[in-house]
Amino acid sequence: MKKPALNIIKIGGNIVDDANKLQHFLQSFAQLPGNKILVHGGGKIATEMASQLNIPQTLIEGRRITDEHTLRIVTMVYAGLINKNIVALLQSLGSNAIGLSGADGNTVKAHKRVHPSIDYGFAGDVDEVNASFLSQLLLSGMVPVIAPITHDLKGQLLNTNADTMAQEIARGLSESFDVTLIYSFEKKGVLKDPAVEDSVIASLTREEFDKYVSQGIITKGMIPKLQNAFLALESGIQKIIIGPAEELALLLNGGTGTHIHHE
Amino acid sequence: MKKPALNIIKIGGNIVDDANKLQHFLQSFAQLPGNKILVHGGGKIATEMASQLNIPQTLIEGRRITDEHTLRIVTMVYAGLINKNIVALLQSLGSNAIGLSGADGNTVKAHKRVHPSIDYGFAGDVDEVNASFLSQLLLSGMVPVIAPITHDLKGQLLNTNADTMAQEIARGLSESFDVTLIYSFEKKGVLKDPAVEDSVIASLTREEFDKYVSQGIITKGMIPKLQNAFLALESGIQKIIIGPAEELALLLNGGTGTHIHHE
Repeated sequence: MKKPALNIIKIGGNIVDDANKLQHFLQSFAQLPGNKILVHGGGKIATEMASQLNIPQTLIEGRRITDEHTLRIVTMVYAGLINKNIVALLQSLGSNAIGLSGADGNTVKAHKRVHPSIDYGFAGDVDEVNASFLSQLLLSGMVPVIAPITHDLKGQLLNTNADTMAQEIARGLSESFDVTLIYSFEKKGVLKDPAVEDSVIASLTREEFDKYVSQGIITKGMIPKLQNAFLALESGIQKIIIGPAEELALLLNGGTGTHIHHE
Repeated sequence: MKKPALNIIKIGGNIVDDANKLQHFLQSFAQLPGNKILVHGGGKIATEMASQLNIPQTLIEGRRITDEHTLRIVTMVYAGLINKNIVALLQSLGSNAIGLSGADGNTVKAHKRVHPSIDYGFAGDVDEVNASFLSQLLLSGMVPVIAPITHDLKGQLLNTNADTMAQEIARGLSESFDVTLIYSFEKKGVLKDPAVEDSVIASLTREEFDKYVSQGIITKGMIPKLQNAFLALESGIQKIIIGPAEELALLLNGGTGTHIHHE
């Protein structure tokens, strides 16, 4: 039997931070037919809030070190402020959105990250996605909007990278759905030259990715994003696209962005 | 056909603010058999957060005036921090909790309060409770945990009094369920003498309530709470109890607290 299609779309912090871009994106998202899940990051709001509350922030390799105070902030900002605003906007656009953290309905169970040298604090690495609960919501026509906060099923909330969250959810639902995973952000795709907006790499294999990294062409935050994309590819997701949140329909049609392939 | 039983329990800010009391309450709550919904308030955390962020707060007749900045704070604190912590704790206690604001699944639709002389800002008065969605969650064994944030279905989040939220949800579900509505807090019930902990009024009718108010025996925040209780009674809820969050099982058995009656 053919599996039903499912689009899992992650939006980056730059879209979340900009009310106009967010509204524009959500209009396109609301118009997408069929099963869909939105995963959002946090952007600058949590950093600004930490600064206003005088809580110093540490990032190691693009990952926030989540001490107790920072966990409170990301829980408030990601699962509260951002998530509920997105849900309310989608409801106004006719999408029956429901906001979820990983704790809600035990949607995403994780454990506190163990690392030989770095203490990431309350950072969560995903153990399991509750595919049956998410499927039940999708089958009843709802649109899950997922904040990158997980829990350990022992009462502890944890902070999980939103790109990873999207990849894990895609993997968890790939048995029941024909998943397309979209990392959408403010750029046109993975760029050969960050200064040239149109230098999009239209197609990318793991081998090419490794080569671009060794040549210093793909750098910084794009590396963990693409590592997540290749993890998804290797777990059986067939369609993985990285590209502009502003052109969602075109992105899904294959008309723009970077497409991740086996070879 | 006999309707299934449903306990709707509202916990007050003093319980939410105290980690030990909250844990103790949630343990009793998790052990309650059958259908249940938890509605929580906010307590001091939002006020503290507003103070730390230098956002002045105004209360009129116990109701917070919700300007744009305050709305951001209550959305973060109620629907994010408090809601997700309660959900994670309940999950650890074996309850399949799901946190909801009124926007999620369009659970509670409201409109911005219209008042002839006071501008309450983004305060929401409830229009409609999505009984079919809440019923669906309950029938699948889930435990809704509801934050007192609503939306207007036009993209605007609104701040709604938690006692009112509990009463409206009780009313909305009373067609499908045999609802018991419990307002639980740090006291033993409605007191004849606030200084005497054991001066609990065991049973209260509307007539007696009016008399106690005119005599200055029932005052302050207890008045709107009891007005909500009587609204619920008049909308057909048969069992309404006000009493100690610390003795939830006893409260439900009728062994303590103030019971609201027609006569």
